[in-house]
Amino acid sequence: MKLNSLEDLLLHELRDLYSAEMQIMKALPKLTQAAASPALAEVFAAHLDETERQLDRLDTIFEDLGEATHGASCPAMEGLLEEGQEIVAEEGDPAVKDAALIAAAQRVEHYEIAGYGAARTFAEQLGYSEIAELLQHSLDEEHAADDKLNNLALSEVNFEAANH
Amino acid sequence: MKLNSLEDLLLHELRDLYSAEMQIMKALPKLTQAAASPALAEVFAAHLDETERQLDRLDTIFEDLGEATHGASCPAMEGLLEEGQEIVAEEGDPAVKDAALIAAAQRVEHYEIAGYGAARTFAEQLGYSEIAELLQHSLDEEHAADDKLNNLALSEVNFEAANH
Repeated sequence: MKLNSLEDLLLHELRDLYSAEMQIMKALPKLTQAAASPALAEVFAAHLDETERQLDRLDTIFEDLGEATHGASCPAMEGLLEEGQEIVAEEGDPAVKDAALIAAAQRVEHYEIAGYGAARTFAEQLGYSEIAELLQHSLDEEHAADDKLNNLALSEVNFEAANH
Repeated sequence: MKLNSLEDLLLHELRDLYSAEMQIMKALPKLTQAAASPALAEVFAAHLDETERQLDRLDTIFEDLGEATHGASCPAMEGLLEEGQEIVAEEGDPAVKDAALIAAAQRVEHYEIAGYGAARTFAEQLGYSEIAELLQHSLDEEHAADDKLNNLALSEVNFEAANH
Protein backbone atom coordinates (compact mmCIF):
# COMPACT_ATOMS: atom_id res chain seq x y z
CA MET A 1 0.00 0.00 0.00
CA LYS A 2 1.24 3.48 -0.92
CA LEU A 3 -0.30 6.54 0.71
CA ASN A 4 1.39 9.43 -1.07
CA SER A 5 -1.71 10.91 -2.68
CA LEU A 6 -5.50 10.82 -2.43
CA GLU A 7 -5.42 8.70 -5.60
CA ASP A 8 -3.29 6.11 -3.77
CA LEU A 9 -5.82 6.12 -0.96
CA LEU A 10 -8.79 5.71 -3.34
CA LEU A 11 -7.03 2.73 -4.90
CA HIS A 12 -6.35 1.24 -1.48
CA GLU A 13 -10.02 1.62 -0.50
CA LEU A 14 -11.18 0.06 -3.78
CA ARG A 15 -8.88 -2.95 -3.34
CA ASP A 16 -10.05 -3.39 0.24
CA LEU A 17 -13.66 -3.38 -1.01
CA TYR A 18 -12.80 -5.83 -3.77
CA SER A 19 -11.28 -8.26 -1.28
CA ALA A 20 -14.28 -7.78 1.04
CA GLU A 21 -16.82 -8.44 -1.76
CA MET A 22 -14.96 -11.55 -2.93
CA GLN A 23 -15.04 -12.94 0.62
CA ILE A 24 -18.73 -12.08 0.97
CA MET A 25 -19.52 -13.82 -2.32
CA LYS A 26 -17.94 -17.02 -0.98
CA ALA A 27 -19.71 -16.77 2.39
CA LEU A 28 -23.26 -15.98 1.24
CA PRO A 29 -24.22 -19.46 -0.05
CA LYS A 30 -23.33 -20.89 3.39
CA LEU A 31 -25.41 -18.23 5.14
CA THR A 32 -28.33 -18.87 2.76
CA GLN A 33 -28.18 -22.56 3.59
CA ALA A 34 -27.93 -21.92 7.34
CA ALA A 35 -30.98 -19.62 7.51
CA ALA A 36 -34.05 -21.32 9.00
CA SER A 37 -36.46 -18.59 7.87
CA PRO A 38 -37.24 -18.80 4.13
CA ALA A 39 -37.53 -15.00 4.05
CA LEU A 40 -34.01 -14.65 5.46
CA ALA A 41 -32.64 -17.23 3.01
CA GLU A 42 -34.21 -15.15 0.23
CA VAL A 43 -32.56 -11.93 1.45
CA PHE A 44 -29.16 -13.65 1.51
CA ALA A 45 -29.70 -15.17 -1.96
CA ALA A 46 -30.73 -11.79 -3.39
CA HIS A 47 -27.66 -10.19 -1.84
CA LEU A 48 -25.46 -12.71 -3.63
CA ASP A 49 -26.75 -11.43 -6.98
CA GLU A 50 -26.20 -7.88 -5.78
CA THR A 51 -22.65 -8.69 -4.65
CA GLU A 52 -21.84 -10.03 -8.11
CA ARG A 53 -23.05 -6.78 -9.67
CA GLN A 54 -21.05 -4.77 -7.14
CA LEU A 55 -17.93 -6.72 -8.10
CA ASP A 56 -18.67 -5.98 -11.77
CA ARG A 57 -18.86 -2.27 -10.90
CA LEU A 58 -15.50 -2.47 -9.14
CA ASP A 59 -14.03 -4.25 -12.19
CA THR A 60 -15.27 -1.39 -14.39
CA ILE A 61 -13.69 1.15 -12.04
CA PHE A 62 -10.32 -0.63 -11.99
CA GLU A 63 -10.41 -0.78 -15.79
CA ASP A 64 -11.17 2.97 -15.97
CA LEU A 65 -8.24 3.67 -13.68
CA GLY A 66 -5.97 1.24 -15.55
CA GLU A 67 -5.13 -0.55 -12.31
CA ALA A 68 -5.18 -4.15 -11.08
CA THR A 69 -7.87 -5.32 -8.67
CA HIS A 70 -5.52 -7.32 -6.49
CA GLY A 71 -3.03 -6.14 -3.93
CA ALA A 72 -5.01 -5.83 -0.72
CA SER A 73 -6.41 -8.31 1.71
CA CYS A 74 -9.21 -7.27 4.03
CA PRO A 75 -8.53 -8.70 7.49
CA ALA A 76 -11.59 -6.92 8.91
CA MET A 77 -13.92 -8.83 6.57
CA GLU A 78 -12.13 -12.07 7.49
CA GLY A 79 -12.98 -11.38 11.13
CA LEU A 80 -16.55 -10.33 10.34
CA LEU A 81 -17.23 -13.49 8.36
CA GLU A 82 -15.53 -15.63 11.01
CA GLU A 83 -18.15 -14.33 13.45
CA GLY A 84 -20.90 -15.36 11.02
CA GLN A 85 -19.30 -18.78 10.58
CA GLU A 86 -19.21 -19.28 14.38
CA ILE A 87 -22.98 -18.74 14.51
CA VAL A 88 -23.58 -21.18 11.65
CA ALA A 89 -21.51 -23.84 13.47
CA GLU A 90 -23.21 -23.26 16.83
CA GLU A 91 -25.90 -25.52 18.29
CA GLY A 92 -29.03 -23.66 19.29
CA ASP A 93 -32.59 -22.68 18.53
CA PRO A 94 -33.08 -22.05 14.77
CA ALA A 95 -35.00 -18.79 15.31
CA VAL A 96 -32.37 -17.47 17.73
CA LYS A 97 -29.62 -18.43 15.29
CA ASP A 98 -31.46 -16.55 12.53
CA ALA A 99 -31.58 -13.43 14.72
CA ALA A 100 -27.84 -13.86 15.37
CA LEU A 101 -27.14 -14.27 11.63
CA ILE A 102 -29.03 -11.05 10.90
CA ALA A 103 -27.00 -9.17 13.52
CA ALA A 104 -23.76 -10.55 12.01
CA ALA A 105 -24.87 -9.71 8.47
CA GLN A 106 -25.74 -6.15 9.50
CA ARG A 107 -22.16 -5.72 10.76
CA VAL A 108 -20.98 -6.81 7.28
CA GLU A 109 -23.35 -4.31 5.62
CA HIS A 110 -22.09 -1.54 7.88
CA TYR A 111 -18.49 -2.32 6.96
CA GLU A 112 -19.41 -1.93 3.33
CA ILE A 113 -21.42 1.24 3.99
CA ALA A 114 -18.35 2.82 5.62
CA GLY A 115 -16.05 1.53 2.84
CA TYR A 116 -18.19 2.60 -0.13
CA GLY A 117 -18.93 5.93 1.59
CA ALA A 118 -15.22 6.72 1.96
CA ALA A 119 -14.31 5.57 -1.56
CA ARG A 120 -17.22 7.55 -3.08
CA THR A 121 -16.11 10.72 -1.28
CA PHE A 122 -12.47 10.33 -2.38
CA ALA A 123 -13.59 9.74 -5.99
CA GLU A 124 -15.77 12.87 -5.88
CA GLN A 125 -12.91 14.90 -4.48
CA LEU A 126 -10.63 13.70 -7.28
CA GLY A 127 -13.22 14.73 -9.88
CA TYR A 128 -13.93 11.13 -10.97
CA SER A 129 -17.65 11.68 -11.23
CA GLU A 130 -18.52 8.46 -13.11
CA ILE A 131 -16.59 6.36 -10.60
CA ALA A 132 -18.27 8.21 -7.73
CA GLU A 133 -21.65 7.44 -9.28
CA LEU A 134 -20.91 3.70 -9.55
CA LEU A 135 -19.77 3.65 -5.92
CA GLN A 136 -22.89 5.58 -4.85
CA HIS A 137 -25.01 2.94 -6.57
CA SER A 138 -23.37 0.16 -4.53
CA LEU A 139 -23.60 2.27 -1.38
CA ASP A 140 -27.35 2.71 -1.90
CA GLU A 141 -27.72 -1.06 -2.33
CA GLU A 142 -25.84 -1.73 0.92
CA HIS A 143 -28.10 0.70 2.79
CA ALA A 144 -31.15 -1.02 1.29
CA ALA A 145 -29.82 -4.48 2.24
CA ASP A 146 -29.26 -3.30 5.82
CA ASP A 147 -32.83 -1.92 5.94
CA LYS A 148 -34.20 -5.20 4.59
CA LEU A 149 -32.40 -7.16 7.33
CA ASN A 150 -33.65 -4.70 9.94
CA ASN A 151 -37.26 -5.01 8.80
CA LEU A 152 -37.04 -8.79 8.72
CA ALA A 153 -35.63 -8.86 12.28
CA LEU A 154 -38.33 -6.54 13.59
CA SER A 155 -41.26 -8.02 11.67
CA GLU A 156 -40.56 -11.71 12.10
CA VAL A 157 -37.28 -13.22 13.23
CA ASN A 158 -36.84 -11.55 16.64
CA PHE A 159 -40.43 -12.39 17.67
CA GLU A 160 -39.84 -16.01 16.75
CA ALA A 161 -36.60 -15.94 18.74
CA ALA A 162 -38.26 -14.32 21.79
CA ASN A 163 -40.91 -17.04 21.87
CA HIS A 164 -38.41 -19.87 22.04
CA MET B 1 -21.59 -19.22 23.08
CA LYS B 2 -25.08 -20.59 23.65
CA LEU B 3 -27.91 -19.61 21.33
CA ASN B 4 -30.96 -21.23 22.87
CA SER B 5 -32.87 -18.03 23.67
CA LEU B 6 -32.96 -14.34 22.82
CA GLU B 7 -31.41 -13.74 26.25
CA ASP B 8 -28.42 -15.92 25.24
CA LEU B 9 -28.11 -13.86 22.08
CA LEU B 10 -28.28 -10.53 23.95
CA LEU B 11 -25.50 -11.76 26.25
CA HIS B 12 -23.42 -12.85 23.26
CA GLU B 13 -23.84 -9.42 21.62
CA LEU B 14 -22.93 -7.64 24.87
CA ARG B 15 -19.77 -9.71 25.32
CA ASP B 16 -18.80 -9.10 21.70
CA LEU B 17 -19.24 -5.34 22.29
CA TYR B 18 -17.25 -5.55 25.52
CA SER B 19 -14.34 -7.23 23.73
CA ALA B 20 -14.59 -4.68 20.90
CA GLU B 21 -14.57 -1.68 23.27
CA MET B 22 -11.58 -3.06 25.23
CA GLN B 23 -9.63 -3.43 22.00
CA ILE B 24 -10.63 0.08 20.88
CA MET B 25 -9.51 1.52 24.23
CA LYS B 26 -6.05 0.03 23.69
CA ALA B 27 -5.83 1.21 20.07
CA LEU B 28 -7.02 4.83 20.47
CA PRO B 29 -3.85 6.27 22.10
CA LYS B 30 -1.80 4.95 19.13
CA LEU B 31 -4.25 6.51 16.67
CA THR B 32 -4.19 9.82 18.58
CA GLN B 33 -0.41 9.86 18.37
CA ALA B 34 -0.40 8.95 14.68
CA ALA B 35 -2.80 11.73 13.64
CA ALA B 36 -1.05 14.66 11.92
CA SER B 37 -4.07 16.99 12.18
CA PRO B 38 -4.54 18.37 15.73
CA ALA B 39 -8.33 18.35 15.15
CA LEU B 40 -8.22 14.62 14.32
CA ALA B 41 -6.02 13.88 17.35
CA GLU B 42 -8.63 15.69 19.44
CA VAL B 43 -11.50 13.60 18.03
CA PHE B 44 -9.59 10.39 18.83
CA ALA B 45 -8.72 11.60 22.35
CA ALA B 46 -12.36 12.55 23.03
CA HIS B 47 -13.49 9.15 21.79
CA LEU B 48 -11.17 7.48 24.30
CA ASP B 49 -13.10 9.18 27.15
CA GLU B 50 -16.35 8.14 25.50
CA THR B 51 -15.14 4.54 25.13
CA GLU B 52 -14.37 4.40 28.86
CA ARG B 53 -17.90 5.57 29.67
CA GLN B 54 -19.33 3.02 27.21
CA LEU B 55 -17.39 0.26 28.98
CA ASP B 56 -18.79 1.51 32.33
CA ARG B 57 -22.29 1.25 30.86
CA LEU B 58 -21.62 -2.32 29.74
CA ASP B 59 -20.30 -3.14 33.24
CA THR B 60 -23.56 -1.81 34.72
CA ILE B 61 -25.57 -3.95 32.30
CA PHE B 62 -23.60 -7.13 33.11
CA GLU B 63 -24.12 -6.42 36.82
CA ASP B 64 -27.87 -5.95 36.27
CA LEU B 65 -28.00 -9.27 34.43
CA GLY B 66 -25.79 -11.00 37.03
CA GLU B 67 -23.44 -12.18 34.28
CA ALA B 68 -19.70 -12.02 33.67
CA THR B 69 -18.27 -9.67 31.05
CA HIS B 70 -15.80 -12.14 29.62
CA GLY B 71 -16.37 -15.11 27.38
CA ALA B 72 -16.27 -13.69 23.88
CA SER B 73 -13.49 -12.48 21.66
CA CYS B 74 -14.28 -10.19 18.77
CA PRO B 75 -12.24 -11.27 15.73
CA ALA B 76 -13.93 -8.63 13.57
CA MET B 77 -12.59 -5.81 15.75
CA GLU B 78 -9.14 -7.45 15.66
CA GLY B 79 -9.25 -7.24 11.86
CA LEU B 80 -10.64 -3.70 11.86
CA LEU B 81 -7.90 -2.44 14.17
CA GLU B 82 -5.24 -4.35 12.22
CA GLU B 83 -6.25 -2.27 9.20
CA GLY B 84 -5.80 0.91 11.27
CA GLN B 85 -2.43 -0.30 12.49
CA GLU B 86 -1.29 -0.95 8.90
CA ILE B 87 -2.01 2.69 8.04
CA VAL B 88 -0.13 3.94 11.10
CA ALA B 89 2.90 1.84 10.11
CA GLU B 90 2.80 2.94 6.45
CA GLU B 91 5.12 5.54 4.93
CA GLY B 92 3.28 8.30 3.14
CA ASP B 93 1.99 11.84 3.11
CA PRO B 94 0.71 12.87 6.57
CA ALA B 95 -2.53 14.40 5.23
CA VAL B 96 -3.28 11.30 3.11
CA LYS B 97 -2.57 9.07 6.11
CA ASP B 98 -5.00 11.16 8.18
CA ALA B 99 -7.70 10.67 5.54
CA ALA B 100 -6.95 6.92 5.60
CA LEU B 101 -7.14 6.85 9.42
CA ILE B 102 -10.54 8.56 9.32
CA ALA B 103 -11.84 5.99 6.82
CA ALA B 104 -10.54 3.15 9.05
CA ALA B 105 -12.04 4.74 12.18
CA GLN B 106 -15.41 5.12 10.46
CA ARG B 107 -15.42 1.38 9.79
CA VAL B 108 -14.87 0.85 13.53
CA GLU B 109 -17.75 3.23 14.35
CA HIS B 110 -20.01 1.39 11.92
CA TYR B 111 -19.19 -1.94 13.55
CA GLU B 112 -20.25 -0.49 16.87
CA ILE B 113 -23.37 1.12 15.38
CA ALA B 114 -24.47 -2.30 14.08
CA GLY B 115 -23.54 -4.01 17.37
CA TYR B 116 -25.21 -1.53 19.72
CA GLY B 117 -28.24 -1.35 17.41
CA ALA B 118 -28.75 -5.13 17.53
CA ALA B 119 -28.17 -5.37 21.31
CA ARG B 120 -30.54 -2.43 21.98
CA THR B 121 -33.29 -4.08 19.90
CA PHE B 122 -32.88 -7.46 21.66
CA ALA B 123 -32.98 -5.74 25.09
CA GLU B 124 -36.17 -3.88 24.11
CA GLN B 125 -37.76 -7.07 22.90
CA LEU B 126 -36.93 -8.79 26.20
CA GLY B 127 -38.54 -5.91 28.13
CA TYR B 128 -35.21 -4.73 29.64
CA SER B 129 -36.01 -1.06 29.17
CA GLU B 130 -33.21 0.35 31.37
CA ILE B 131 -30.60 -1.77 29.60
CA ALA B 132 -32.04 -0.73 26.23
CA GLU B 133 -31.74 2.92 27.29
CA LEU B 134 -28.07 2.54 28.25
CA LEU B 135 -27.34 0.86 24.92
CA GLN B 136 -29.23 3.59 23.04
CA HIS B 137 -27.04 6.18 24.76
CA SER B 138 -23.86 4.48 23.51
CA LEU B 139 -25.43 4.02 20.06
CA ASP B 140 -26.15 7.77 19.87
CA GLU B 141 -22.54 8.51 20.82
CA GLU B 142 -21.23 6.21 18.09
CA HIS B 143 -23.43 7.93 15.50
CA ALA B 144 -22.16 11.32 16.71
CA ALA B 145 -18.52 10.14 16.56
CA ASP B 146 -19.05 8.92 12.99
CA ASP B 147 -20.59 12.31 12.04
CA LYS B 148 -17.67 14.15 13.64
CA LEU B 149 -15.17 12.11 11.59
CA ASN B 150 -17.22 12.72 8.45
CA ASN B 151 -17.31 16.47 8.99
CA LEU B 152 -13.60 16.58 9.71
CA ALA B 153 -12.85 14.65 6.49
CA LEU B 154 -15.05 16.90 4.39
CA SER B 155 -14.08 20.22 5.98
CA GLU B 156 -10.35 19.76 6.28
CA VAL B 157 -8.49 16.48 5.98
CA ASN B 158 -9.51 15.37 2.48
CA PHE B 159 -8.74 18.80 0.99
CA GLU B 160 -5.28 18.69 2.55
CA ALA B 161 -4.84 15.18 1.15
CA ALA B 162 -6.02 16.18 -2.34
CA ASN B 163 -3.48 19.01 -2.45
CA HIS B 164 -0.50 16.75 -1.77
